[in-house]
Amino acid sequence: MCTSLLYRDLQGSVYAGRTMELPVELPYLAAFIPKGTPLASKVGAHPALEYQSKYDILGVAVPNGSIKDLKVCEGMNEAGLDFSLLAFADTHGPDDTFAADAPLLSAIDLGAWILGQFSTVAEVKAALENQPVIVDPLEALGGTIPPFHYTVHDRSGASIVIEFFDGERHIFDNPIGVMTNSPRFDWHLTNLNNYTFFDNTDQTAATILGQEFVQPDSGIATAGLPASDTAVGRFVRAAYYANFTEKADGPDKAILALSHLMNKFDRPRGASRYASAKASALTSSAAALSGQGEVKKPDYITEYTSWTSLTDLDRGLMFLKPYDSLGYVSMDLGKLAAAGGIHVVPLSAFDQAEGNATAIMLAH
Amino acid sequence: MCTSLLYRDLQGSVYAGRTMELPVELPYLAAFIPKGTPLASKVGAHPALEYQSKYDILGVAVPNGSIKDLKVCEGMNEAGLDFSLLAFADTHGPDDTFAADAPLLSAIDLGAWILGQFSTVAEVKAALENQPVIVDPLEALGGTIPPFHYTVHDRSGASIVIEFFDGERHIFDNPIGVMTNSPRFDWHLTNLNNYTFFDNTDQTAATILGQEFVQPDSGIATAGLPASDTAVGRFVRAAYYANFTEKADGPDKAILALSHLMNKFDRPRGASRYASAKASALTSSAAALSGQGEVKKPDYITEYTSWTSLTDLDRGLMFLKPYDSLGYVSMDLGKLAAAGGIHVVPLSAFDQAEGNATAIMLAH
Amino acid sequence: MCTSLLYRDLQGSVYAGRTMELPVELPYLAAFIPKGTPLASKVGAHPALEYQSKYDILGVAVPNGSIKDLKVCEGMNEAGLDFSLLAFADTHGPDDTFAADAPLLSAIDLGAWILGQFSTVAEVKAALENQPVIVDPLEALGGTIPPFHYTVHDRSGASIVIEFFDGERHIFDNPIGVMTNSPRFDWHLTNLNNYTFFDNTDQTAATILGQEFVQPDSGIATAGLPASDTAVGRFVRAAYYANFTEKADGPDKAILALSHLMNKFDRPRGASRYASAKASALTSSAAALSGQGEVKKPDYITEYTSWTSLTDLDRGLMFLKPYDSLGYVSMDLGKLAAAGGIHVVPLSAFDQAEGNATAIMLAH
Amino acid sequence: MCTSLLYRDLQGSVYAGRTMELPVELPYLAAFIPKGTPLASKVGAHPALEYQSKYDILGVAVPNGSIKDLKVCEGMNEAGLDFSLLAFADTHGPDDTFAADAPLLSAIDLGAWILGQFSTVAEVKAALENQPVIVDPLEALGGTIPPFHYTVHDRSGASIVIEFFDGERHIFDNPIGVMTNSPRFDWHLTNLNNYTFFDNTDQTAATILGQEFVQPDSGIATAGLPASDTAVGRFVRAAYYANFTEKADGPDKAILALSHLMNKFDRPRGASRYASAKASALTSSAAALSGQGEVKKPDYITEYTSWTSLTDLDRGLMFLKPYDSLGYVSMDLGKLAAAGGIHVVPLSAFDQAEGNATAIMLAH
Repeated sequence: MCTSLLYRDLQGSVYAGRTMELPVELPYLAAFIPKGTPLASKVGAHPALEYQSKYDILGVAVPNGSIKDLKVCEGMNEAGLDFSLLAFADTHGPDDTFAADAPLLSAIDLGAWILGQFSTVAEVKAALENQPVIVDPLEALGGTIPPFHYTVHDRSGASIVIEFFDGERHIFDNPIGVMTNSPRFDWHLTNLNNYTFFDNTDQTAATILGQEFVQPDSGIATAGLPASDTAVGRFVRAAYYANFTEKADGPDKAILALSHLMNKFDRPRGASRYASAKASALTSSAAALSGQGEVKKPDYITEYTSWTSLTDLDRGLMFLKPYDSLGYVSMDLGKLAAAGGIHVVPLSAFDQAEGNATAIMLAH
Repeated sequence: MCTSLLYRDLQGSVYAGRTMELPVELPYLAAFIPKGTPLASKVGAHPALEYQSKYDILGVAVPNGSIKDLKVCEGMNEAGLDFSLLAFADTHGPDDTFAADAPLLSAIDLGAWILGQFSTVAEVKAALENQPVIVDPLEALGGTIPPFHYTVHDRSGASIVIEFFDGERHIFDNPIGVMTNSPRFDWHLTNLNNYTFFDNTDQTAATILGQEFVQPDSGIATAGLPASDTAVGRFVRAAYYANFTEKADGPDKAILALSHLMNKFDRPRGASRYASAKASALTSSAAALSGQGEVKKPDYITEYTSWTSLTDLDRGLMFLKPYDSLGYVSMDLGKLAAAGGIHVVPLSAFDQAEGNATAIMLAH
Repeated sequence: MCTSLLYRDLQGSVYAGRTMELPVELPYLAAFIPKGTPLASKVGAHPALEYQSKYDILGVAVPNGSIKDLKVCEGMNEAGLDFSLLAFADTHGPDDTFAADAPLLSAIDLGAWILGQFSTVAEVKAALENQPVIVDPLEALGGTIPPFHYTVHDRSGASIVIEFFDGERHIFDNPIGVMTNSPRFDWHLTNLNNYTFFDNTDQTAATILGQEFVQPDSGIATAGLPASDTAVGRFVRAAYYANFTEKADGPDKAILALSHLMNKFDRPRGASRYASAKASALTSSAAALSGQGEVKKPDYITEYTSWTSLTDLDRGLMFLKPYDSLGYVSMDLGKLAAAGGIHVVPLSAFDQAEGNATAIMLAH
Repeated sequence: MCTSLLYRDLQGSVYAGRTMELPVELPYLAAFIPKGTPLASKVGAHPALEYQSKYDILGVAVPNGSIKDLKVCEGMNEAGLDFSLLAFADTHGPDDTFAADAPLLSAIDLGAWILGQFSTVAEVKAALENQPVIVDPLEALGGTIPPFHYTVHDRSGASIVIEFFDGERHIFDNPIGVMTNSPRFDWHLTNLNNYTFFDNTDQTAATILGQEFVQPDSGIATAGLPASDTAVGRFVRAAYYANFTEKADGPDKAILALSHLMNKFDRPRGASRYASAKASALTSSAAALSGQGEVKKPDYITEYTSWTSLTDLDRGLMFLKPYDSLGYVSMDLGKLAAAGGIHVVPLSAFDQAEGNATAIMLAH
């Protein structure tokens, strides 16, 4: 499924990269939501939790029935706070034992609630202490609960993971900024203890039983990395590449470096697949979300990278590459804010043609 | 170093992808050379081998001192023949035992010679039978021999590998279209016998000692792939991904699928590195090729993907992505041919900005 | 460190295998303790917990100062209950908040307490519910706490793991009978979800990109197993081999099969090693336990298999192979019980010479 | 299939270890053949190659129809020369183009011919230069050619590999003393270039993305070893363990160390298996060799370690452990020689019971 990570440049600025893999295409929208927008979240029969956004938000969202109810999958705000929603199969939240008249936050609205109101991870942690959150069934998901966990980063590189499992809410500090999918986040951190041999130095010569052996190529340093594309393998590789990818000098080079880093987590259709009978609730209800009527079950399901985003927390830039594009497009939060208003565009609008080099060559 | 492979779409059309990794930046040029161009190759004191190109050529080349002496690294011709030069550390060619007045072909000129004159792999094989080829020292490489091997593909998917080692020239049929670097090509083919468990089906449940275990994520199918970024690891993974990446429907989708496939072989700076003392002759003379005077030795050397190309053999299109670009640019051999003349552009001209989505969003 | 597992034969009988790896040699004793022996455990200033054993016990123990205070490392009783103590670096038990006059059980005495009084895992679980257990510092370990966890099996194959971590006691049901070392047991169970591709069928042929590849040898089925000799790697391999090793027909063949299985976990000195500066408390106090005065620090520490035991729970047989032996010796609980009395022998008494085949050959 | 390797002790003495894995049990014999025994080899209609042994031979052999025609699988002679025959699926020897009256050596007789006449590897190499060897079909193998290759070691540690493939005989110097099975020996040597990261030092701590991770266990050094039990995986692991297993002090400790080392290559029945339809010629004719009449095809074939041998080249000792034994027996070439005569014993005579420790304990 999804891979998310933080990358830092030579100056220490923080950039967030993430891929979105689901077995199906959701009706993703690129969305700009200006500060001052009234937002709400509703859980069951509780009164709606209503608030007004204090920060401009730019990101990718999925409409829950209507464009007025955007569920943020990935986004940043003008204060440089970054939010990502990733699949989490083990989701099992606390029961609703709250007073009937208490306005609760539905987990699926964490993105808007966080990006709309806070500027740092510390603020988010503090606010969550007093805010009940319920993993509420989502009509658009056929009435199943949204199987996600959530990560929040800020410009300082602070990072947390919010998970609902074993009937409880867990908020983990994330000292390394990496998150993928199941199992629970602290399992992954423990798993990194099995990779203490990480080193990006190619050890290219060895004397074995008195004989010298030489590796003629570069790249042997990665020999011990896990190859599986499951969340467990990707978490370990994400930690490796985020750690060792050369720190770029300045934000333009940093975004380029991050784009190469994220390519390591790009997944082509067909690389692995499973029987469509094993599709999760998420899969089966994606059709509903996309507003498709009847959808034929495919012969198999293959998870691929629907889109990848690169976020520059300092400059308020987000770069997006949909699966059907040969390159990234950029979105500038500041310019959108200056223009004012809500802006919502289907991601498919960014399936741009590649740059045209023929013209450049003809000019030479 | 480099990874090259063939991908086929649902219709059976053939596409070539390759990455170029060297520890240094050479002065790569995108080049169009029209048919009818007089070309030559010279080995030592032998008379020059002179010929006129019969096919339009489009590709990436490095100038040997002057733009008049282009050494083709990657290219295609109008007949859909595709040529790639990749690093090969074991290069050790036959001695020059030919008559002093025989015009010989220098191995470094194989690209121009092949693309300029032939339309199929079969033609190339036949022509090579009567053409002596010498791995001649290259002044631009500080007088060392060019450490490369060469692969040629055609529109039928036929493929050969040309290598010079153990003092002999070897021409291998390449039944799978994959080539990376050392050791010799047939060693890699034998190595694939160690991967007969290849299967892209995620085996997500198992009963072990009476207990059921379930993998909640997709992607476990790749668990047995090698993780090393050496030529050996990349060869195996290239075979896997070229085999299992879903066959796209038609050329536009095929190029997109191939771009995702090639991302698996994209290497960020720093992912692995070695002491600059271990730099090969190629490295040390790259400065000379680039026309740089004195170059300070870096602290370490890291091989990264200088550029990636995607070639559509049927349509005569080549897509290029330099390291410093967030996307591909396309070059159209037919349009260049229609315009006429030689066209040569530094690759850095393609370090294009990403697509501008802000404008698109503002329009919504 | 240590690997323990259960193996079943065709008839469903249960056999326990375990290796003991520590960086040092403790003064291991083979010990038979007849039923009716008065036993005790003491924690701090609490009154001693005193009881009389109800079952004959056979196993391997380490004397805590004197032969009268044996700490059981591995053992079985006449009811077919089996107990193993293994290293557990994460040990951190609950604080002693019990009444000063309450007799408590020291964790290091779990072996004698369990084997002396119970016949099934269910009985042990029930008894532990009412028995406070404290991880008490051990004088013989230089006053540090004994860093161990404990597993109990019975003839039905029922199995539990007892761990003290995060300041709490945890009792896990062990559905697969495998235990190694850190991290906590349930982490390992979750980790097996990453090995759902387990299959002992050699997949020896594959068509890759249209070309057939054949693996000429047997054994490719194990290609996806982890290679690390850490607790994590060994846990996974133990699950694999315990699951797939052919079920033998009857106890004699079963013990032979189990001996081959356990060879997979035999560790020669030198296979891996670490700086002696990193030696744990256990290491540094082993000298004290062995009654050695001054011990020079070795240049490095290498963990090797001090001994391996194979236990036949039905027949009351234990087979032992010390590191310095070329074969196993057997101990018969029934015969020892019939003879009566306590029997304690240093394991080094079993460093037997191999069988003498020269004599057999000369007789032919 | 089989794994063979050399181990050296602190004093530099050489010991040979090997396992024998075939999918079936051959009628193995432990055999002592005194010097002065008349021996012969016969190829097709050529006259027999006759010679008298000059050295005492001790080893494991299979009778070709009669006990008078022993085919040596593993053996040593009194000069400390060691010979091993291992399975080699790629066997394809030169055609018989020799004069009809030339006495030729059948490859299957290499063991007796080498051990009977030579004392060093250098002598064997020199003698082979003038001795035609033919891979002759073996009646006992149902008229198929014996699919084996051969390795010879001497007390200096010199080692060669003799293979017949691609229609030619190849004699490779073996600088590391390791041999397994297919593919050809030099392929394996090249493959070791992919393992230049070999290091037995546990790297147990790493700072990843600013966070410290610690591996609490020993053994992480082996994380990069291949896990497959094919000849390719075993070759690499054999090189690792032969290189890093601690050099023991003196021959008794060396044999113990070698026994632990070889346990790494012990294969239990069932660890991997394949359809009996894929059984090789060797398998199908094993029944014939064993003198069994009709043999039912098993449901599957699983290759396991029929026996393991440890050979002390200096002292003339061979230690053997059949699959159905819990320990090794020893054979002393010197004592057998002193006794005189030929001695031949079925290996099953060594399925000795384990040592009886009950008696030892009762005496305490």
